[in-house]
Amino acid sequence: MAIPADETTAGVAVSNLLADYAACIDGDALERWPDFFTEDCVYRITSAYNFVRDLPAGIVHADNRRMLQDRVAALRKANIYEKQGYRHIVSVPRIGRSNGTMLETEAGFLVVRILAEGSLDLFATGRYVDRIDFSGERPRFASKVVVLDSEKIDTLLAIPL
Amino acid sequence: MAIPADETTAGVAVSNLLADYAACIDGDALERWPDFFTEDCVYRITSAYNFVRDLPAGIVHADNRRMLQDRVAALRKANIYEKQGYRHIVSVPRIGRSNGTMLETEAGFLVVRILAEGSLDLFATGRYVDRIDFSGERPRFASKVVVLDSEKIDTLLAIPL
Amino acid sequence: MAIPADETTAGVAVSNLLADYAACIDGDALERWPDFFTEDCVYRITSAYNFVRDLPAGIVHADNRRMLQDRVAALRKANIYEKQGYRHIVSVPRIGRSNGTMLETEAGFLVVRILAEGSLDLFATGRYVDRIDFSGERPRFASKVVVLDSEKIDTLLAIPL
Repeated sequence: MAIPADETTAGVAVSNLLADYAACIDGDALERWPDFFTEDCVYRITSAYNFVRDLPAGIVHADNRRMLQDRVAALRKANIYEKQGYRHIVSVPRIGRSNGTMLETEAGFLVVRILAEGSLDLFATGRYVDRIDFSGERPRFASKVVVLDSEKIDTLLAIPL
Repeated sequence: MAIPADETTAGVAVSNLLADYAACIDGDALERWPDFFTEDCVYRITSAYNFVRDLPAGIVHADNRRMLQDRVAALRKANIYEKQGYRHIVSVPRIGRSNGTMLETEAGFLVVRILAEGSLDLFATGRYVDRIDFSGERPRFASKVVVLDSEKIDTLLAIPL
Repeated sequence: MAIPADETTAGVAVSNLLADYAACIDGDALERWPDFFTEDCVYRITSAYNFVRDLPAGIVHADNRRMLQDRVAALRKANIYEKQGYRHIVSVPRIGRSNGTMLETEAGFLVVRILAEGSLDLFATGRYVDRIDFSGERPRFASKVVVLDSEKIDTLLAIPL
């Protein structure tokens, strides 16, 4: 597979990938989550404050897919996850520059948390800064930086974003 | 009309349909709402809990378009609807399998309620699990299952989602 | 550049434009904001109540791009803006009628405000009623009417929406 030659096809492919990704997390299918990434992917969660200053220290930093698998295993073991749900709403994406089989994209997002007794709250907002690799049989994230708008992040450590 | 042969065209057609659908409800043009469905449509509102277990009992269950028309008539008569507004935000959609003129899609959504005095609150989140029929002059929902994330649903009975 | 002949290409072009627009505001790149508009643009912020009644008095009314530049200059001078951030989430857009190089579109949106101490609140919801001019080297808003769902708007005067 290659990057679709025209921006239109690329735009829809990106929307589909982002929608699949969000559905995987919200559907608690976390075992499938690492498969959205390339083997030597970068996955980071950071804040807008740190991102703008290019500070490397993020909230989460993974250098490859195995680290994401370990993360899922740890989450399952900790079992923190069961009593609340999440809903990702992804804004219309921007298609950026492409280079070979790699495409840069960005999309704003919002995550609502659904608590066990049923109430909803605004959990996080931010943007995905992604590089998508189209060289495999399906598009995967070569790099995904989750840039959170808020610095208040203590409770965020558990959930993939 | 047939399902667009390529996924790109289908993706944009689905986005347009979802956007029209949301605008119809948010614009309080409920008399147009049943026309988004085929005559023998299924329309259900259920919770994630029930949906995963395939429990048939939903919050709302309609087997055909006439039931949707009756619902609108009842809403208009009850007149519950006037003092608050709604805003649907639909996340980027996923294009699923197609079969003949029928296309499966899913999209996360969020509904904000606008109260009479002007305050905004998070009213509902969930996902649309849709089958779209492209055999007519315009795409319509052959089946729309509104899967709500929260079990707390008492006040939801009034509004189409 | 002309309006893409097919609705699919137009749909992706519109998504891209809306995503760029939102990213510009959320990224506090306000000096670039007026450039999303044509020179003789109309930019209005109004409420659903006024919009439906076609009342001309809006919260903000600009008749050309220079007024938008003045607005940014005033905002920078007032310096109101620094302590909070915003995140626009734009729903899937509707592609409407086209006329020559002009395309009508609509999209629901939601704005979350990020306060200095890190909390998130629902700041505004509404829809963009846009006319996009494709005659230049890139698409620009010939008219953008921001129709807010709520009448409670006192604090909205500062931020471009």
